Amino acid sequence: MKLVEVLHMNGGIGDISYANNSLVQRKAILMTKPIIEQAMRDLYCSLFPENLCIADLGCSSGANTFLVISELVKTIEKERKKHGFQSPEFHYLFNDLPSNDFNTIFQSLGEFEHDLRKQFGEGFGPCFFSGVSGSFYTRLFPSKCLHFVHSSYSIHWLSQVPNFIEKNKGNIYMSSTSPPSVIKAYYKQYEKDFSIFLKYRSEELMKGGKMVLTFLGRESDDPSSKEGCYIWELLGMALNELVIEGLIEEEKVDSFNIPNYTASPAEVKYLVDKEGSFTINKLETTRVHWNYASNTNNENISNNGGYNLSRAIRAVAEPLLVSQFDPKLMDLVFQKYEEIISDCMSKEKTEFINVIVSMTRKN
Amino acid sequence: MKLVEVLHMNGGIGDISYANNSLVQRKAILMTKPIIEQAMRDLYCSLFPENLCIADLGCSSGANTFLVISELVKTIEKERKKHGFQSPEFHYLFNDLPSNDFNTIFQSLGEFEHDLRKQFGEGFGPCFFSGVSGSFYTRLFPSKCLHFVHSSYSIHWLSQVPNFIEKNKGNIYMSSTSPPSVIKAYYKQYEKDFSIFLKYRSEELMKGGKMVLTFLGRESDDPSSKEGCYIWELLGMALNELVIEGLIEEEKVDSFNIPNYTASPAEVKYLVDKEGSFTINKLETTRVHWNYASNTNNENISNNGGYNLSRAIRAVAEPLLVSQFDPKLMDLVFQKYEEIISDCMSKEKTEFINVIVSMTRKN
Repeated sequence: MKLVEVLHMNGGIGDISYANNSLVQRKAILMTKPIIEQAMRDLYCSLFPENLCIADLGCSSGANTFLVISELVKTIEKERKKHGFQSPEFHYLFNDLPSNDFNTIFQSLGEFEHDLRKQFGEGFGPCFFSGVSGSFYTRLFPSKCLHFVHSSYSIHWLSQVPNFIEKNKGNIYMSSTSPPSVIKAYYKQYEKDFSIFLKYRSEELMKGGKMVLTFLGRESDDPSSKEGCYIWELLGMALNELVIEGLIEEEKVDSFNIPNYTASPAEVKYLVDKEGSFTINKLETTRVHWNYASNTNNENISNNGGYNLSRAIRAVAEPLLVSQFDPKLMDLVFQKYEEIISDCMSKEKTEFINVIVSMTRKN
Repeated sequence: MKLVEVLHMNGGIGDISYANNSLVQRKAILMTKPIIEQAMRDLYCSLFPENLCIADLGCSSGANTFLVISELVKTIEKERKKHGFQSPEFHYLFNDLPSNDFNTIFQSLGEFEHDLRKQFGEGFGPCFFSGVSGSFYTRLFPSKCLHFVHSSYSIHWLSQVPNFIEKNKGNIYMSSTSPPSVIKAYYKQYEKDFSIFLKYRSEELMKGGKMVLTFLGRESDDPSSKEGCYIWELLGMALNELVIEGLIEEEKVDSFNIPNYTASPAEVKYLVDKEGSFTINKLETTRVHWNYASNTNNENISNNGGYNLSRAIRAVAEPLLVSQFDPKLMDLVFQKYEEIISDCMSKEKTEFINVIVSMTRKN
């Protein structure tokens, strides 16, 4: 089965939906805010466009989908008022894979636009929204049509599971016990995917256009270091427990690998420079404690960190898992996972590392 | 409840879905083909655009959604080869109300694009697709971005049920027994809606851009003539039978009205001229026999005309009906409807009248 047909966040607005289990992603967006704002301000003040075309790659569906737009619009409205210009026509493009729940996005747009208009008043907009389905490892948009590209918590997903010459026995991601050939294959896939990502975006962005990417990464130079791999290592442990209990065949775990790559800033810089279309304006890392999966004022969400993070990862990874394992085992897998995560969180400093890169399309 | 939240075709690909019950609409598209082709040929040969932006308004979801694109692409590919040009970048925008099933469209795009590429070869495209949700009685697209607008079997839907000063007693649409004030209110709503439709499209289409609209209409000057109203009159009869059986309250039928308007070519011409942004190139009517709901080689579809047309109307009108009547009654309503339609088809010449108008955005 093709990854583009399998990979998507859990849809809808139910208990195990991505929409209701994406607080870590929300935190990452909020932490990136100053960088996004500066990139948008620089873009607006260098081009003063009458229409402004913005794409969000891997938009998913839920509150996070709309969070970035609000921030971007706020920045532009402030700047254009300062300079005495009319509000530009906003054109906002939502991109995700075809299996994403676009219907939920479209059905939320009416209320969202109403809120924007209330917030920014009559002089704002108009605002146009489109959904564009497809992998961002292909061309998605007409040539030179974009001013701004944003993507958060998406491009750590590879276009496919790497081709391995050896089994990644007992693991579902890179780990300290993975054969070197597995780690090399992961990097090769990332190198290919990220380079093609840059190439296609360079064709779609107009000259001077900006792109801000946030994704899960690491600071260490070692791709198999715990920093970038721990959350999947623990999921592998949960699956292996079910192997021991005889509920999952060992072979099924050995042949299942998460199509992620948690890159380091050095790798990002190397590949951006090598591809050649973009200038890097900012390249940083930030840290989000695993507890952020529970950090909310919403009293419907428990403050059990392990439970919440397990659900957050379930919302992201369940469609992948059920392509390999019995869907009826999912409750059990994520119950084990919760226990393992809770145990780790009580003993260690557990953090996600975000890499943020802000770039400009060269002239 | 707002009409934009209620009005949509039955989604998915099941038994009573629009996707599987839209042969009349297919026939209408095929009959309009020569006019669409000519408009597209004229457009291409006057502008020779490097990128070509086409919007389909009221695209719904199913095979018909893709039928028009194939025809348009075929026309362009033929012309551009004749003139020795490279294929333009195609940008195709699918529009429908937010409650339309866009997910099904997006999930079909991969295969559709693959088929296009197989049919037209390597030199073709690239082709970009977007979904845009919203009423076509609002602005949908950025200014002057469109080359071509197509809409089939959509703009006979009004933006709302007209405001009546008298009850349309016993009817669910205009009929010979409707009070004159009801018929006037229907026309007033149509006049307002179609004028605003033209105004917004004139803002979105670039100069020289073209628009081809096909919709259910009539040839008669009388808005309440059977020609345009019969299919709804019969649905009203089915509902009234359930009133007699005590299953539906009379008041519920009296206060339910279909937000359609089946315009005449004379009314269309009058309103296009009055609005002033478009030149009419062609304005025609065609006829489709009700039997076309059964006209297929698909052996899964019975050749029972009444049954098929009843299902076709169900696919279109059920979401509206269940906003007023008990959803549990729908099977019964459409069973009655089938009987009534079958009876008519055996006794009368039963046809839909399509109005087709091809226009150019004035310079």
